[in-house]
Amino acid sequence: MLLYNSQISGNCYKVRLLLAHLGVDYERREVDVADRSNRPELLGGLNPALRVPTLVLDDGRSLGESDAILWFFGEGTPFVPADAFQRAQVLQWMFFEQYDHEPAIAVVRFWLAYSGRPAEEFADRIDARREAGHRALAALETHLGGRDWLVGDGLTLADIALYAYTHVAHEGGFELDAYPAIRSWIERVAAQPGHVPIDA
Amino acid sequence: MLLYNSQISGNCYKVRLLLAHLGVDYERREVDVADRSNRPELLGGLNPALRVPTLVLDDGRSLGESDAILWFFGEGTPFVPADAFQRAQVLQWMFFEQYDHEPAIAVVRFWLAYSGRPAEEFADRIDARREAGHRALAALETHLGGRDWLVGDGLTLADIALYAYTHVAHEGGFELDAYPAIRSWIERVAAQPGHVPIDA
Repeated sequence: MLLYNSQISGNCYKVRLLLAHLGVDYERREVDVADRSNRPELLGGLNPALRVPTLVLDDGRSLGESDAILWFFGEGTPFVPADAFQRAQVLQWMFFEQYDHEPAIAVVRFWLAYSGRPAEEFADRIDARREAGHRALAALETHLGGRDWLVGDGLTLADIALYAYTHVAHEGGFELDAYPAIRSWIERVAAQPGHVPIDA
Repeated sequence: MLLYNSQISGNCYKVRLLLAHLGVDYERREVDVADRSNRPELLGGLNPALRVPTLVLDDGRSLGESDAILWFFGEGTPFVPADAFQRAQVLQWMFFEQYDHEPAIAVVRFWLAYSGRPAEEFADRIDARREAGHRALAALETHLGGRDWLVGDGLTLADIALYAYTHVAHEGGFELDAYPAIRSWIERVAAQPGHVPIDA
């Protein structure tokens, strides 16, 4: 199968990280995340949102949205809990990530570190996103205080989804000094057997 | 069980609509969506995002994120397909809704129709959201052309999730004249047995 991929995208990294844990093989096609002009030709018909990651199975069926791809491969593995309420909690954190965390932390990181444009271009929008990002990190910190994992007793899709942009948040100027529980959790996720870094 | 609810919120309506279809009883506690100052006292400890809907089960466990709540009640019913790929497609549309659709269409609707503040306050932000909203509607229109439902052969959580803010998009100035497939689908969803309107 084929993954339309961006190596620097945390959303793509989520998928690569899960597939590494599961030992699933796939091809990658690298997609430019700064110049998006070829997206309609490249991803039209495959993903209504024209974003990466987009996955194309060997039979031609395609799937968009990082977290939907995670779910497709995660169901039936230890990364999706057997308990129905815990499954909903995993999804709660994945939706939280896409609504509250990613649009702040990933977007500022992209603007400052990967857009290839001067920071001044984003100056009027950064403060609000910075504040939203720290709100999301504070919520994560509170939840992780006294817990090893976001849901249940082991690594789940929720940890994979939140780890992706949290562990590179500093590239967007989000320092994690004030979030000790998050820092321990980052080390815990990275120490799991089968873990791969974002540049792998 | 108790639903922290806002009657005008499409995110809360998703939950009310599914629970109506399923015939599940619950209490509601109405939460102000314009004045959010009491959220930490009200929802702290129940929902890391401090948003509605938040659901509290009779045993005290709580769940946030509209789509996670939908999943919790939808699994094992006809609203979540039995096929694993279709389940992932349902989630794809639900994540699309929360990332691309809701932050544009629901937010502009809130600004213009429910915030109680003059439209001029949002003037510098409306154009980008308006454009993003029409991009999301165009993606929905393309997918619904020739299809009755977003995924498979019947109403699923994907339809419920997308219907919620699409059917009131005009309150944010998003007219649906250019989207005939969406308009037919809206009628189809509303004609289902068990359907309830947003003000019910």
